[in-house]
Amino acid sequence: MSRDICIYLEFLTDAHRAQIEKAAGAAGFVPHFFTLDQFEEAKDCLQHCEVLYAHSPELLRTAPAGLKWYCCSFAGVDPYCKDPSIFANPDCLLTNSNVYGVTIAEHVVMVTLMLLRRMPEYEEVIRAKSWSNQLAVRSIRDNEFTILGTGNIGVNVAERMRGMGAAKITGLSRSGRPHPAFDTVYPISRLDEVLPTASILVMALPGTSGTFHLLDRARIALLPASAYVINVGRGSAIDQEPLMEALNAGRLAGAALDVMDPEPLPKEHPLWNARNLILTPHVSGNMTLGYTCDTNVEMFCADLANYAAGRPLRGLVNRKLGY
Amino acid sequence: MSRDICIYLEFLTDAHRAQIEKAAGAAGFVPHFFTLDQFEEAKDCLQHCEVLYAHSPELLRTAPAGLKWYCCSFAGVDPYCKDPSIFANPDCLLTNSNVYGVTIAEHVVMVTLMLLRRMPEYEEVIRAKSWSNQLAVRSIRDNEFTILGTGNIGVNVAERMRGMGAAKITGLSRSGRPHPAFDTVYPISRLDEVLPTASILVMALPGTSGTFHLLDRARIALLPASAYVINVGRGSAIDQEPLMEALNAGRLAGAALDVMDPEPLPKEHPLWNARNLILTPHVSGNMTLGYTCDTNVEMFCADLANYAAGRPLRGLVNRKLGY
Repeated sequence: MSRDICIYLEFLTDAHRAQIEKAAGAAGFVPHFFTLDQFEEAKDCLQHCEVLYAHSPELLRTAPAGLKWYCCSFAGVDPYCKDPSIFANPDCLLTNSNVYGVTIAEHVVMVTLMLLRRMPEYEEVIRAKSWSNQLAVRSIRDNEFTILGTGNIGVNVAERMRGMGAAKITGLSRSGRPHPAFDTVYPISRLDEVLPTASILVMALPGTSGTFHLLDRARIALLPASAYVINVGRGSAIDQEPLMEALNAGRLAGAALDVMDPEPLPKEHPLWNARNLILTPHVSGNMTLGYTCDTNVEMFCADLANYAAGRPLRGLVNRKLGY
Repeated sequence: MSRDICIYLEFLTDAHRAQIEKAAGAAGFVPHFFTLDQFEEAKDCLQHCEVLYAHSPELLRTAPAGLKWYCCSFAGVDPYCKDPSIFANPDCLLTNSNVYGVTIAEHVVMVTLMLLRRMPEYEEVIRAKSWSNQLAVRSIRDNEFTILGTGNIGVNVAERMRGMGAAKITGLSRSGRPHPAFDTVYPISRLDEVLPTASILVMALPGTSGTFHLLDRARIALLPASAYVINVGRGSAIDQEPLMEALNAGRLAGAALDVMDPEPLPKEHPLWNARNLILTPHVSGNMTLGYTCDTNVEMFCADLANYAAGRPLRGLVNRKLGY
């Protein structure tokens, strides 16, 4: 009997499929490919598969207890950790794909510059077909960054800001373990000490019970009025109401949110109209970059070899911690 | 009799004034400071000055033949070169301040990412309080840049794109002299060979008779439909009508213009409404960055020492060539 892999993904090219065929063959597996319009076919196939490579809570719910490894093509796996009943097999391995650092970091560079260079205001000038260029702009060079999350995203952000001449880059992580991309890494328990002098706060945290409303009303009040807040992790990490109030009252210089709570944001939500706020519809980790897709497939193939050989998986998620 | 310097600038801090006082004293000069609301006072003082540090064609016109050096605090000196009669002294030295590379390069990084990441389109989605995140985005990483102008701006742009993983950076300059920031530098006479494979074309050229409508209808037609055009030099370097036509017809992916012809752009100008065009009101070289102002003053002080000692001036402009 063959050992089967169900692959239910939209972004694969012919070259990616060939690459997976080869890796699967070497590991003693047979891959079965489905696109997103083939849900029923994927579901039927999944009933006799040992491995699933996809991003679909709906499909995962149909998997039998025989599923031993679910490789999620996304980085954020909160939907799979919040509700353990989604797995028929309680010991099913879960890996995520931490390959979005490059594209998300480019998004962070973009919105950082848009905030520092007053683009929300200049875009108003341009929409009015007006001409005024006296707004004071600020620079990445000689500026300071505070980055919550020192994983793939945080490191890629730090490297780019360093390359553009940032004066100081502070990281915060659960462990506080040093990393060469940061001048200092503090444990996140020291967040309150760091906020009063933060200039640009970048949030790249997973959605877990420990990060829910991490930036709450009290912490937003600790930030200086000249600070900017950028969130590319999970919307739930910020209490949005005090954030809006601070923006509208000028107690924060600006913010850029690619993630919100809930998504999509309802039409009547007041966040749409907050002052100096750049909203984007959860696009920072967009899958359309060739580099992101290539790395996604490479990571799966490498972990397939690890899995077949009984070695630890690089992308392994602790299903209890949520990352 | 004292040797006098007339300084007519808005951005100086007390620290800058002290720095200039010190450099002037060491060089045997006396500086006289005026802000932009003191035109008459500056004009009276200028009548007995050997040096003027300002950016004001109006004030320069009032200078007598005794003026020997005009240090312009801006990088673009086309207003002073197009009409030589602006100088009473035909041999008056002209220097410019090439200190805008950092801030202009940050602007170029911002608009490059805004174009590659489809921000003009996503901003429409957000303005409609809608939610759609399926537009394909592109990346600076592994992308290619063609930069017209290999001076202070071009080099700062090239360095930032390299730091973010650009695959290939081609420069074009009058001389074609190699520079380590670029993979290759071609003489601008070979522009037509380069355009058909250009991905992101960044224009950072001075406004001279040689750059007028350099990107004309024929050259715009040479660009691939997937190309982006970014101009931070002078608006006159692009023939705007064929550029608009190409954008509106989808024969170009997008453009970002910080400079236009004329400026301010008249209310009725069709450029305001061109498709996938990011307009900014000539803000890329904004003087409000501390770094830019500090470097401006440093360069003036260094050249004042050079001037007093009879050495060549670092910022010297060839008034005939215009840069």
